[in-house]
Amino acid sequence: MAERVLYGYFRSSAAYRVRIALNLKGLAYRQRPVNLLKGEQKSAEYLALNPHGMVPLLDDGGVKIVQSLAICEYLDDAYPDTARLLPSDPVARARARSIALAIAADIHPLQNPRVGKHLQAEFGVGEDGKTEWIRHWIRTGFDALEQQLAASPARYAAGDEPTLADVCLLPQVFSARRFAVDLAPYPHIVRIAEALDALPAFADAHPAKQPDAV
Amino acid sequence: MAERVLYGYFRSSAAYRVRIALNLKGLAYRQRPVNLLKGEQKSAEYLALNPHGMVPLLDDGGVKIVQSLAICEYLDDAYPDTARLLPSDPVARARARSIALAIAADIHPLQNPRVGKHLQAEFGVGEDGKTEWIRHWIRTGFDALEQQLAASPARYAAGDEPTLADVCLLPQVFSARRFAVDLAPYPHIVRIAEALDALPAFADAHPAKQPDAV
Repeated sequence: MAERVLYGYFRSSAAYRVRIALNLKGLAYRQRPVNLLKGEQKSAEYLALNPHGMVPLLDDGGVKIVQSLAICEYLDDAYPDTARLLPSDPVARARARSIALAIAADIHPLQNPRVGKHLQAEFGVGEDGKTEWIRHWIRTGFDALEQQLAASPARYAAGDEPTLADVCLLPQVFSARRFAVDLAPYPHIVRIAEALDALPAFADAHPAKQPDAV
Repeated sequence: MAERVLYGYFRSSAAYRVRIALNLKGLAYRQRPVNLLKGEQKSAEYLALNPHGMVPLLDDGGVKIVQSLAICEYLDDAYPDTARLLPSDPVARARARSIALAIAADIHPLQNPRVGKHLQAEFGVGEDGKTEWIRHWIRTGFDALEQQLAASPARYAAGDEPTLADVCLLPQVFSARRFAVDLAPYPHIVRIAEALDALPAFADAHPAKQPDAV
């Protein structure tokens, strides 16, 4: 039987998303850690798999897919008979995707370690400046996301079942806590993150529980 | 009959994507320009529509959707009988989405004007530094994307029909040219962009052809 292998890193938000998605859909997988601190994502071996030099990458029995949201959508398309990451109604799907993308396209790319490295190399930004940069973009995104969630309150981010929006939300809250962002202004975000953390699919995907956690 | 209105800005890559998608699907729409230079995206009126204060936003007969890729996917979901932005095979869909996201999540967010403004305000980065920052992230993304495209050459970015990947590619090439990125190292990207520019759905969405172009 063809194997399913996730190339990831315990603390990567994007890999965390895919672990949640695989768990929600009940799809077994093996982890193949790529140590970002050691630069393994830039090794010739890994670049041959993904020229972007980023995690995650899913090898689904030989089918190799990069980009966390493309992987999640693929899982929903390829395994439609397990739990769905997106609802069936087009408008509800759009809402879940718009929240997922507000995180994946507007917050997370700005906190990627490669951005901090470039800030340091080009503009001499130090550790405090890099951390404040990350906090700024998380707060900017969360300020608007909190309003979106408050306008249509539900158990989870985009309804009463977990969706792709939640797959992105919990890892972003984990990052916010890691960078000591004050979450007091975001009661809806915090409430939903707590509800998600109580679900085994989300809890089992937590960075601290992964084989490469340090 | 309910009206379809696109809130956008002629030079916004993300709005350009949605114009292409609407044209490809043959869906008529009215444009409602939001002048980003004048800060209209931060007006109380617009923030009430989209708390993120970003374009585009599609009002599809009262259904309001933000985030360009969520809008494109919505159009495919809600109007399945017109041209499809994604192929039907799950692996082919994943390939198109992974290219779209390599642009929408890994290149474009770093060149957003709000990022340049923050670099200037926090670290005193000048115009040259901001432009070089944008070029760096476009080159970084294009270096990898060129390899992806070279590995599976086709007429367009993800096959012989235009897909969501192309919807993102052409606007990113437009931005690269605007910021004078040398495109000589990217023959596949340039060839595909030229092929796309020959299609009316793409050509008609060009920033210079929009009502708010200056």
